[in-house]
Amino acid sequence: MDVRKPRDAFVSLRARIAATGRPVPAGDIGEHGQPLTVGEWAVLIDELLDNPNDEAIWNVALPEEDDREFDAIFVGGGAAGRFGSAFLRARGGRQLVIDSWPFLGGSCPHQACVPHHLFSEVARELDLARHMSGRLWYPKFDPKKASIVEVIELFRAGRGFPHAVMNWQSKEQLGMEYILNSRAQVLDPHTVEADGKRFTAKNIVLATGARTTFPDLPGIDLRGVYDFASLTEDMNYEPNRCVIIGGSKVAIEYGSFFQATGCQTTILSRTPLMTTTSLHHVDDGLRAYVVDMMRDRGMEILEGVEPVAIEGNGKVSAVRYQDANGLEQVIASDFVFIATGERPATSQFVDALGVDVDDNGFIKVDTHMRTSVGNVWAAGDLLGPPLEMFKARKSGCTAARNIMGEPHEFDFTEYPDFLHSTYEITWLGLSESEARRKYQNVIKIQMPPDDANPETFPLPVADGSMLYAFTRPIISGWFKLLIDGDSRRLLGAHHVGFGVKDAFQYLDYLVRRPEGITIDQMGELNELFLNPEHFIQLCRLRAGQSQLTDL
Amino acid sequence: MDVRKPRDAFVSLRARIAATGRPVPAGDIGEHGQPLTVGEWAVLIDELLDNPNDEAIWNVALPEEDDREFDAIFVGGGAAGRFGSAFLRARGGRQLVIDSWPFLGGSCPHQACVPHHLFSEVARELDLARHMSGRLWYPKFDPKKASIVEVIELFRAGRGFPHAVMNWQSKEQLGMEYILNSRAQVLDPHTVEADGKRFTAKNIVLATGARTTFPDLPGIDLRGVYDFASLTEDMNYEPNRCVIIGGSKVAIEYGSFFQATGCQTTILSRTPLMTTTSLHHVDDGLRAYVVDMMRDRGMEILEGVEPVAIEGNGKVSAVRYQDANGLEQVIASDFVFIATGERPATSQFVDALGVDVDDNGFIKVDTHMRTSVGNVWAAGDLLGPPLEMFKARKSGCTAARNIMGEPHEFDFTEYPDFLHSTYEITWLGLSESEARRKYQNVIKIQMPPDDANPETFPLPVADGSMLYAFTRPIISGWFKLLIDGDSRRLLGAHHVGFGVKDAFQYLDYLVRRPEGITIDQMGELNELFLNPEHFIQLCRLRAGQSQLTDL
Repeated sequence: MDVRKPRDAFVSLRARIAATGRPVPAGDIGEHGQPLTVGEWAVLIDELLDNPNDEAIWNVALPEEDDREFDAIFVGGGAAGRFGSAFLRARGGRQLVIDSWPFLGGSCPHQACVPHHLFSEVARELDLARHMSGRLWYPKFDPKKASIVEVIELFRAGRGFPHAVMNWQSKEQLGMEYILNSRAQVLDPHTVEADGKRFTAKNIVLATGARTTFPDLPGIDLRGVYDFASLTEDMNYEPNRCVIIGGSKVAIEYGSFFQATGCQTTILSRTPLMTTTSLHHVDDGLRAYVVDMMRDRGMEILEGVEPVAIEGNGKVSAVRYQDANGLEQVIASDFVFIATGERPATSQFVDALGVDVDDNGFIKVDTHMRTSVGNVWAAGDLLGPPLEMFKARKSGCTAARNIMGEPHEFDFTEYPDFLHSTYEITWLGLSESEARRKYQNVIKIQMPPDDANPETFPLPVADGSMLYAFTRPIISGWFKLLIDGDSRRLLGAHHVGFGVKDAFQYLDYLVRRPEGITIDQMGELNELFLNPEHFIQLCRLRAGQSQLTDL
Repeated sequence: MDVRKPRDAFVSLRARIAATGRPVPAGDIGEHGQPLTVGEWAVLIDELLDNPNDEAIWNVALPEEDDREFDAIFVGGGAAGRFGSAFLRARGGRQLVIDSWPFLGGSCPHQACVPHHLFSEVARELDLARHMSGRLWYPKFDPKKASIVEVIELFRAGRGFPHAVMNWQSKEQLGMEYILNSRAQVLDPHTVEADGKRFTAKNIVLATGARTTFPDLPGIDLRGVYDFASLTEDMNYEPNRCVIIGGSKVAIEYGSFFQATGCQTTILSRTPLMTTTSLHHVDDGLRAYVVDMMRDRGMEILEGVEPVAIEGNGKVSAVRYQDANGLEQVIASDFVFIATGERPATSQFVDALGVDVDDNGFIKVDTHMRTSVGNVWAAGDLLGPPLEMFKARKSGCTAARNIMGEPHEFDFTEYPDFLHSTYEITWLGLSESEARRKYQNVIKIQMPPDDANPETFPLPVADGSMLYAFTRPIISGWFKLLIDGDSRRLLGAHHVGFGVKDAFQYLDYLVRRPEGITIDQMGELNELFLNPEHFIQLCRLRAGQSQLTDL
């Protein structure tokens, strides 16, 4: 089994790699059966993104090489399709994954989580550079130097390598079969058409993701209106004044980036930020700190408002909205960013297969990821919230396991969560109000404490917040740990700062396992000081108490 | 019980706070029995650091207020003494802690871990600013702008707040009794003298820490020779050329900071960096990446060499050393930094109490933290390596628990570990060579893989390494996970990058618990993507295999 190379794209691959100035790996260039390197894949993918009408990329064995029936065809090669395929393949099954992009991994490395992380890192660095302006080695901060377009161009120029890793790893390490740069057409529960050919399989797994819902507003089609996907592909001018319509995670994350570059940003949100049902367990104290700090750095956050119209003559010039008192207001703006959430494109599956969907078009599945139609499964963002990576990947794997005869259920109703402002904001378990509704004796460990002066209380502090702690303590972060004083078990953890996102994956597991984790067990862990969340040592300071009290 | 205020220091505290430009908290200033705020403590501590001959700070009940005997006197109020005191107090005991500094917390917030973290954050930011020089909003990097002295001054100006939190928290939240700014003199296993008074207790806990050992080299007393403590207190010029004698963690951490500021730095180490016995479980691949990347940014690392003399006329001008071939060499230098490790100052305890010590002067204890002398305990850096925070704090708590009648043992031979270069370098469990010696079927998950071109392989990537991944992938980091292919359990994890230090605390617990954690359980966790270490999703990509293979 080998990659069938699109005729034209490969003809002068070596020359094209050299022309880009990228390192040309030693050895052959994959034209005689040798595996493509990551660098070669990157060039090929860039070629196909520029010329999407080139032939598809095939990595599928011909019947004379492998005549086993496919156990599943994954329609969509994003997180759900790729991880589902890898798992099914590892279990000894045969899979085919088909994607319309020339790379596996889906929107994440192309337009979503990967650029979001680059933009959030840029926002964090710009925020620090602005705060430190003229101090130590930091020059006087010139906001005109920070360009949204340049950062996007940096991303676009570099995204070929992460894409390439997906293709290379999927082929060379995971042994997957795929057809890329080709849109799949589902014909029935066993038949999919791609690149002019029909493929049959025992099962089909639908995994084509979701897209931004553009609200039905006058002016929504004006130039200057973007979502996260079109921003990455098409943004070509430096905006001065941004209005964000919607209050989702994307609104906070991208808005913080725009503001950090010096583009004055207003968020128009119907509900208070971080209170929508799509974000669960958000603690009031955490929310207050996050929103206060966004405002502290100049963002305008208007909650309880309703957008009315986007105005402009060909290009956006203003946004009209109804304020919380019902009065109409207008904000001059040369950049509107839509962050009102995402919906799936499932009509083809409804038409061809008759799968049941909910009112928002999300496909209904059981805990095994089975749809209403036999032998048809679904995974990823198609299933509805949370539109998170863990759910996409694990739902794909869940479908794969069940297809391979291993009954397996996946419950994605509880999980740790995070978002970026110019901070990393992370939480797990219960919020304080949830904890107090459920438990009589809730103990709180919080920094800074409610009664401290946050301008002089230099905790939390650790890697990433040291310069803040030593120049203006209040901006070094905030955290809270909630404990049931009776069982002594951790109930929830909430953190604003840097460097804890990774830890919350494991702490969430410890909190949610049947026996949980107690304040006493926390105190027995070995901290790596200055540990960003200070939880272990603060638990230890209280663990000696038989009757726990706040800290 | 109230703070006895040194007469002079408190006279015009409010005016002095105002004069510093620091926020003056509302309300009274603690002169009439109200608790001192953190801001007030900060001013008082700064006063006493400037005038150490002022009276001691007392927070000890008089016999007429509380005539219970002390369960323990902690000699030294650093991490071990403070945490031990807090634990004993929480268990209902009565303690007294005595420290010669006017604050609790010991060397960590004053000269060690806290400034180290500030310096390492500065190094990371300078490294990024230099790498990005002239790209995006980053101005052309001017190394003359980065000043070691300015960063140290920033730390010194701000360390009062963290100190203040220690005193405030210990008094107001933890109810501890202490005497500060007063050196304790141990007289016998039940008697300690401080501030001209004698105090008796059922037990004494020795916890006075360790200090840099200055090697017996010609020229060691020249001006321009510093260790981490004198650097923080006394550094008053901008060096151009640094030679570090010793290859400890401190050498790597401080050397990376000096180099980042533009001070060309050479490390002279007898043994290859990170191979000394004080660092266990260091993986060869991790070590190679760390050292390569230090050299990549211009540091000179000379291993297998022996310093011979520091030269200069009053002030350092050169360092003479024997190279790995036995030839004598000389490096012109205006700054010598000693990083050859630390030793305790235990002679007073040997003389007064007769406690057993080892060849290096470290006090011998059993697993309960009992010394060779009845009713005398020891904790923290006095016990010898590892000189790490978790050990200091937990050994103090262990002594406290045993003193309060609860038999408790503490084994600090295994723990996760970390250090900074301009990266966060973190590891736990076994190195690859250790794993292969112990297990037949070791499976490795590594990024970049050994056979990839690291200049084009953009993993690992996450918060903190996004700009690197999109400009020069090889500098975005490195990691390895080791798994026993038979039991499927994780054996070790090794990471160079950013944002995983906190996670390794919890992952270490999961790996070391009796049942361990398997690759299959890892795959079932919920990642927070882009999670800095990628372990969860990479485990999931392989977990489907019945016979595991490398990734």
